[in-house]
Amino acid sequence: MHTIPLNNRPRIVSGAAIAGKKEAAGPLRADFDQIIEDDLFGEETWEKAESRFQYTAGTLAIRKAGLTPDQLDVSLGGDLLDQIMATALSARELGIPFLGLYGACSTMAESLCVASMLADGGHVKHALCTASSHFCTAERQFRFPLEYGSQRPPTAQWTVTGAGSAVVSTDERLPAICRATHVTIGRIVDMSIKDANNMGAAMAPAAADTLRRHLTDLHRTADDYDLIITGDLGQVGRALLLTLMQEQGMPIDPARHMDCGLALFTPEQDVHAGGSGCGCSAVTLCGHIFRRFQQGELHRVLFMATGALLSPTTSQQGDTIPGIAHAIALEADP
Amino acid sequence: MHTIPLNNRPRIVSGAAIAGKKEAAGPLRADFDQIIEDDLFGEETWEKAESRFQYTAGTLAIRKAGLTPDQLDVSLGGDLLDQIMATALSARELGIPFLGLYGACSTMAESLCVASMLADGGHVKHALCTASSHFCTAERQFRFPLEYGSQRPPTAQWTVTGAGSAVVSTDERLPAICRATHVTIGRIVDMSIKDANNMGAAMAPAAADTLRRHLTDLHRTADDYDLIITGDLGQVGRALLLTLMQEQGMPIDPARHMDCGLALFTPEQDVHAGGSGCGCSAVTLCGHIFRRFQQGELHRVLFMATGALLSPTTSQQGDTIPGIAHAIALEADP
Repeated sequence: MHTIPLNNRPRIVSGAAIAGKKEAAGPLRADFDQIIEDDLFGEETWEKAESRFQYTAGTLAIRKAGLTPDQLDVSLGGDLLDQIMATALSARELGIPFLGLYGACSTMAESLCVASMLADGGHVKHALCTASSHFCTAERQFRFPLEYGSQRPPTAQWTVTGAGSAVVSTDERLPAICRATHVTIGRIVDMSIKDANNMGAAMAPAAADTLRRHLTDLHRTADDYDLIITGDLGQVGRALLLTLMQEQGMPIDPARHMDCGLALFTPEQDVHAGGSGCGCSAVTLCGHIFRRFQQGELHRVLFMATGALLSPTTSQQGDTIPGIAHAIALEADP
Repeated sequence: MHTIPLNNRPRIVSGAAIAGKKEAAGPLRADFDQIIEDDLFGEETWEKAESRFQYTAGTLAIRKAGLTPDQLDVSLGGDLLDQIMATALSARELGIPFLGLYGACSTMAESLCVASMLADGGHVKHALCTASSHFCTAERQFRFPLEYGSQRPPTAQWTVTGAGSAVVSTDERLPAICRATHVTIGRIVDMSIKDANNMGAAMAPAAADTLRRHLTDLHRTADDYDLIITGDLGQVGRALLLTLMQEQGMPIDPARHMDCGLALFTPEQDVHAGGSGCGCSAVTLCGHIFRRFQQGELHRVLFMATGALLSPTTSQQGDTIPGIAHAIALEADP
């Protein structure tokens, strides 16, 4: 039994999604709290800009919850940068006790999983969960400096510029957007993908592993969820996940599966296989999904952000890309 | 109130410390479970070697607890490498649900804090906590490739090659080395230190902030602990911590303060200001401190590992080094 029930069903009481220009040109534009046209967000470097995205999302989520930063017991988050620097610089400004996470693009789910367990156990009352990514910081770090003008193959994905934040709380006086009911922590699954331009294939087996364990543990099928939401599998990874689940005898109706990387952009936006990055699932959850919960369109979803633990160093040394996926079940407050 | 009581006092049921050659030449030699003479640990790269240190520590801690890896509900850990790659590769071998953490050298405390809260809340029964560092991977990544033969100033510290692991459990049938009673999660404190060769000064203010909050919340003084254990402040940071606590009106008797970075090496070992790295506090806690608990020499300690969230990228951009310190109070099982 790997799936952890949250008996007190901690509340998600607010969310904030701050998105970049390209993300705001896609189908989810109306769901973002703020759109930042300037890639640099008024800062001198992309790394500082990404940190400002996070700080802006975090402070807005806190404000939307009707709280002040000093009322938060803990902030949990991460990003794709070495030493999760965007998160660290944002946490420095916030001044909230801070747990740094590294789960690559699974970070939004990882932070919600940990925060929900800490709230469920009564160890924290209010927790802030945040994740971010930035196209320019990620390309420079993981692939090539943008100035090189490298070509991108069709399997490549587009790192989302944006940050999402949510406040998890045990305070019954705060209205809940939804409640967290179960956590399934991901295992590392590595199917020997070596191509940094094919992250969907590296992550899909991890998503299938987590989803299989989640459904088996709870004696559920995919049909028990309005949506199974993956983070950034993209076209390649989504197709692989659906195939893997079919093969495991636990088919997903494609209409019940939503990949944030595919939802964020239209095919005309030239992102190839779809969006990616910690910010991809973070802005989609904290903007789009929370809005649909609030409008009564969703009753139960599984939010399962996927991460490719790609390291440029070990990739150069010939190693493969480990994948991971953490899942948290969210239900409307009845 | 920032300090979180663990009402069920989760048990630390095993520890394993795997150390490198230089570490084993120091005063704590007898406390290590295994000494690895070869920097490469039989691998082709230092990164893979560091991962092998972690895997060796993790599997040994599990075995010493009388468990098998499939009985573990979660593994939590991290290291200093970009994308915590040593930890990810080790977690891939272990196959245990995995929460990746990034807290730089505070990681061993961060993993114990989170694991203890999850165990205390009943969300996990057995959790593995691990942290590692490696002199050769860290110098290459954060400072200069070793081949350059760079000189080191007197304030520089020596990154420890080693890994420590502990198993936290709620199983009353397993004999406890000690029990976790309170957690104080660190805040980021940044006193504008920019020198990657003076990490002690960057971390000491964070340690003072956490310690002040911990003692104030619990109405305790430093004298209520047999030892206040910091991770890797070194000579510079230790002196600064003692001064800061004095100035805050909460003096620490120097005999009650132990810095792992100073305990691991003798002055003759030419490590300048002391040891550092995630592995520094991990091997000292899981080897030396646990042994002293088992021999009845310690009754209550505060384990407070300190981290400098140094990023080469933001350092090159002129930013300063954020510091953090997480604390967990450990008591002998009466």
